[in-house]
Amino acid sequence: MVGFNSGKEARKEIRAEKWTGITPGLAYGYTQANLVVLPANYAMDFLIFCQRNPKPCPILDICEPGKFTPNMIAPTADIRTDIPKYRVYRDGILVEEVNNILNLWTEDLVTFLIGCSFTFEKALSDAEIGIRHIEEKRNVPMYITNIECNPAGIFNGPTVVSMRPIRKDLVEKAVAITSRFPRVHGAPIHIGNPEEIGIKDISKPDFGDSVTINEGEVPVFWACGVTPQAVIMHVKPELVITHAPGCMFISDVLDDDLATY
Amino acid sequence: MVGFNSGKEARKEIRAEKWTGITPGLAYGYTQANLVVLPANYAMDFLIFCQRNPKPCPILDICEPGKFTPNMIAPTADIRTDIPKYRVYRDGILVEEVNNILNLWTEDLVTFLIGCSFTFEKALSDAEIGIRHIEEKRNVPMYITNIECNPAGIFNGPTVVSMRPIRKDLVEKAVAITSRFPRVHGAPIHIGNPEEIGIKDISKPDFGDSVTINEGEVPVFWACGVTPQAVIMHVKPELVITHAPGCMFISDVLDDDLATY
Repeated sequence: MVGFNSGKEARKEIRAEKWTGITPGLAYGYTQANLVVLPANYAMDFLIFCQRNPKPCPILDICEPGKFTPNMIAPTADIRTDIPKYRVYRDGILVEEVNNILNLWTEDLVTFLIGCSFTFEKALSDAEIGIRHIEEKRNVPMYITNIECNPAGIFNGPTVVSMRPIRKDLVEKAVAITSRFPRVHGAPIHIGNPEEIGIKDISKPDFGDSVTINEGEVPVFWACGVTPQAVIMHVKPELVITHAPGCMFISDVLDDDLATY
Repeated sequence: MVGFNSGKEARKEIRAEKWTGITPGLAYGYTQANLVVLPANYAMDFLIFCQRNPKPCPILDICEPGKFTPNMIAPTADIRTDIPKYRVYRDGILVEEVNNILNLWTEDLVTFLIGCSFTFEKALSDAEIGIRHIEEKRNVPMYITNIECNPAGIFNGPTVVSMRPIRKDLVEKAVAITSRFPRVHGAPIHIGNPEEIGIKDISKPDFGDSVTINEGEVPVFWACGVTPQAVIMHVKPELVITHAPGCMFISDVLDDDLATY
């Protein structure tokens, strides 16, 4: 895979539409984020929803209505062009995939950039804890749980989790490492028993792909950034724009700098 | 001082206006919060401001427009009655102090509850790190710094800090302890040299009282919850309601539970 030396460099190619594919590993060490763009009349409720559900919805940056530069994490970026592929939903239905949203932009749109598990996966890998779906070249398995989010205004729904099998003797280490990163989902929300959080069949994820769980490994569940998307789609706003799966926004922030202090 | 066994019990007395004084230590171990109530048209910008400045403005809870129950931290509370004393500002000017805001309440008001240093002071005390202004029975000294907040919409201004003198050999411990509490200002933002952050005379705080700094102690500066109030007053909204100094909102959350994970 092509690699860029910084988020800025990667965004330059993406902006020129020379790179329109997925982004994992594209600028190694730079934090990637989920994109959600909403009309302003939904933004306040959504912001309160994120505030009340920081584990599935950790906000890395917000642009005020009509603004398209996420000053906190990438002050030279343009959110309308700097993502390889966008998905456009109208009334909750996916209507198109596009490489920029310049034509769709209005003064009324509010942009949210939400933390993504790539950051803590890097921290786990750095500590030599293998990430199964990466080893098996699949998408991470994701499941709808019976854990309700804290509702806010018009938004409510269940927490979606991602699962990574972890060797029994490494579970504590994996918890300790990810707990240092509350802005990218933080510590797991469940360890061990899928049924306890409403997952009937671990081999059948609701999103993503199934992965192998070996003898001596425990399924570990983290709150997942798909949660806010699922919650929004349930409300069917007239317009929602997100990144296409795997085609994330690459910021100027280093993953390592997202540890709490 | 009178003591209550829980936040709920304290709020019952406060609601009945049997307790109209300051709250430090009133329900020991229960998290207290700063109150800011704003008209809805300011709320979105303010929420983005808090999001971008989590150290001075850590949000513990928000009530949607017109709602007066902070479901996340005190689901039986009524924000209109459960604070001993409120301050009402019109166009940036303090116009009255009242014991409830029932008559002022409208469907348009949005409530913010913001973390307060009492929580990390408890953690420091538990670790036998003395808090000078408590020992000297004074208010914590606070200073306007040269550290600009990240602006958001109509809001901008300098970070206000609180200062606690810490014995040299305990500074690292104080940093480690408070860094576990990002929702109540977290780790210090400066250690040692007041001038470096724009404080000319440490004996003359901009708010609160001066405290003794002994030989062998270092002044340690934490981001302070007065910051968001100062930033709001600068904009002079038609109406702002806050708690009166020292008369905080007492939640159902335990201080110890606010450590990050």
